Amino acid sequence: MEKKTLFIGLFGLGTVGKGVAELLLKRKNKIENYEFVLKGIVVKHLNKKRNISIPSHLLTSNPGKILKDEKINTIIEVMGGITSAKDIIMEALKRKKNVITANKALLAKAGSEIFKKAQENNCYLGVRASNIASYRLVESLSSSPSEIQKLVGIFNGTCNYILTEMEKKEKEFSLILKEAQKIGYTEQDPSNDIDGYDTAHKLAVLLGLTSGYFPPLQSFFIEGIRRISYQDIIFTKELGYRIKLLAIAQKENNKLEIRVHPALISRNKALSRLEGIENGIEIRDEAGLEIGMQAPGAGKYPTATAILEDLISIARGKRLTFPQEKKGVKLKKMEDVIARYYLKFEALDKPRVLSEISGILGNYNISIQAVLQKGERKNKEKDSVPVIMLTHKAKEKNIQKALQEINELSIIKEKSLLIRVEEGIF
Amino acid sequence: MEKKTLFIGLFGLGTVGKGVAELLLKRKNKIENYEFVLKGIVVKHLNKKRNISIPSHLLTSNPGKILKDEKINTIIEVMGGITSAKDIIMEALKRKKNVITANKALLAKAGSEIFKKAQENNCYLGVRASNIASYRLVESLSSSPSEIQKLVGIFNGTCNYILTEMEKKEKEFSLILKEAQKIGYTEQDPSNDIDGYDTAHKLAVLLGLTSGYFPPLQSFFIEGIRRISYQDIIFTKELGYRIKLLAIAQKENNKLEIRVHPALISRNKALSRLEGIENGIEIRDEAGLEIGMQAPGAGKYPTATAILEDLISIARGKRLTFPQEKKGVKLKKMEDVIARYYLKFEALDKPRVLSEISGILGNYNISIQAVLQKGERKNKEKDSVPVIMLTHKAKEKNIQKALQEINELSIIKEKSLLIRVEEGIF
Repeated sequence: MEKKTLFIGLFGLGTVGKGVAELLLKRKNKIENYEFVLKGIVVKHLNKKRNISIPSHLLTSNPGKILKDEKINTIIEVMGGITSAKDIIMEALKRKKNVITANKALLAKAGSEIFKKAQENNCYLGVRASNIASYRLVESLSSSPSEIQKLVGIFNGTCNYILTEMEKKEKEFSLILKEAQKIGYTEQDPSNDIDGYDTAHKLAVLLGLTSGYFPPLQSFFIEGIRRISYQDIIFTKELGYRIKLLAIAQKENNKLEIRVHPALISRNKALSRLEGIENGIEIRDEAGLEIGMQAPGAGKYPTATAILEDLISIARGKRLTFPQEKKGVKLKKMEDVIARYYLKFEALDKPRVLSEISGILGNYNISIQAVLQKGERKNKEKDSVPVIMLTHKAKEKNIQKALQEINELSIIKEKSLLIRVEEGIF
Repeated sequence: MEKKTLFIGLFGLGTVGKGVAELLLKRKNKIENYEFVLKGIVVKHLNKKRNISIPSHLLTSNPGKILKDEKINTIIEVMGGITSAKDIIMEALKRKKNVITANKALLAKAGSEIFKKAQENNCYLGVRASNIASYRLVESLSSSPSEIQKLVGIFNGTCNYILTEMEKKEKEFSLILKEAQKIGYTEQDPSNDIDGYDTAHKLAVLLGLTSGYFPPLQSFFIEGIRRISYQDIIFTKELGYRIKLLAIAQKENNKLEIRVHPALISRNKALSRLEGIENGIEIRDEAGLEIGMQAPGAGKYPTATAILEDLISIARGKRLTFPQEKKGVKLKKMEDVIARYYLKFEALDKPRVLSEISGILGNYNISIQAVLQKGERKNKEKDSVPVIMLTHKAKEKNIQKALQEINELSIIKEKSLLIRVEEGIF
């Protein structure tokens, strides 16, 4: 049997980098019939304290040392950031080195360019670690002649952790967010996670890898979970749903809609049962095949395992197969999206409330499936109560216009909240 | 961009063969940047009437003509059977032709040998069509360093059709089987489908492809669906379950259990919701990743699409990657399997019945979770009524021994029925 050795340069020694280094050292560099030799690790600060024992001769702060080392045939980029990560990857590909990266923000931005460079130089580009919710599916999806008709995913462990903990601990968003920051599930500035950007990056990369079309991020509808309150968790529970931050891509009449937002999903559906930092994805293709995957969540080991699979693919001589670039994809405008909606109004509990709200909704062809009216007011003139409505299918444009009108009613005390409902697949 | 042409020889023009031929002709031989040219079709009877228009110069009854044609670089084998199919495939590989086959019975028997031959000759062996429930997963599973911990699948469309129609139409097994034969869902001799062999073949191939270990078919526990009655469908419904013919592989304490049998699966689980000829699979690996897939079922198009994907893989220059052969796999004996059980006893409704049965079960450490006692007897001395029990987890050996003792009781009027309960994954 052929025996192959990969000489590896690792860029970055954060959580994921440590996981990769540990895995390679623990396995004594051998997996199957292949040998993986860690030749060097690029770090920013050579003398930083790290709770991992790494032979010091491996460490360098000079990327050029690794890039120019002709023996190194594979680099792993887990340093993050955009500019210098891109420079390093492009330089490595130019020098015919295989590249493995977990950098979804970079891939979302420059994936098409990077993939072309890899193909030109006949290098392998491993990106399994960029989205652990889907990496086991990407390869087979990209070799399918049938296109994705619908994709629904939970790609951000932090958001899923926050939303499930709010329900379990019966606490508000801000408190759980603080806990998540404390245990290291999100950064001091959590915007990348909770405002949906991380999810959007992963969705962009996934669409690019499977269809050959990297949609521009500006065309995405992106909404985060900051406005979700414990009250909404309770109400949706009563209605038989859970709230999840979803990545959705869907094709109808040859138009593709791409959106990231919190959504209600029925408690009978597999995605609603993902807990904590778990990730998941469900896809239906145009031939009717349905495929789903759940991953145990973020952290160093799942990501390191994905990187390991890329290493095995390189060692086995797998070639980079990438769908041909697709042109002429038409994107649907958000205002044309059709969904069911969960609406929350903070209204003075006057007898007219229901009729006024439903009157406006009716004017926009929006019909109501369920109504919940909760809470007691202390002061009948001043205090408001939440009124919850679940609508039948409606057009986003109509919902937005109706909400605008409703928000202007004197009986409405706060900007109304809208959460879309998603049917899911499995 | 590279442009590649595959010259194809097709062996067999049954349902699947026709689908492949149609698909290749309909697409005008072009997919993406590749050209697929159907050069010849081997059939048994040249002059047989076929409801498909095929240029007659393509047809031949001489396999040698195709095999010896050096221009043909890819053959598709959809003729079925074992001996001559194997000869044709081995000969084609020897002559450095890529091979695509849907022949699961052959692969289950000789998969290891055929894969080795393909690797020796640097040929691609496409087997996606051998199990449409799983083909989108096989590739990624076989490149995973993490092993399968549990696999549950519905692989036989005929059985799933029969079991769902029994519930929908409220009819007995034999009547629905006749309907399935009439519409062509199964053969005049349905044994291959309903006795579980087809499912077992698919499971064997899947395990072989993903782990490198082709388990011997004799080591499988295989039980079909002939004993399932409409009554069981009703009782299991009442208990919150559905009956499905499942393929199960599971590793515990480093021992692998492989079994095919009807099983109760909760109505909340995705597999229980597969209807008609739909197929599905769920896998959990040792790293905790869970992955599932549902396919719209048998028939010419899903299978032809799978074959098309193999053609695309060949055209794209994908290499055959096959896990290294695994040795020393230990198989668990069926008697050591642990499951919950649905038991049906036909008992004379005497006051002692419940206590006698549960006494024997208790002697074997089997505890009861639920009991259903149904039906009215006309003659209290002679007529029996079904007594249904759902047990907690128990060892197969104990259940079998207990049933043997119970069957000998004078109050038991028929051989008791046992159906295992499966928890599923999604």
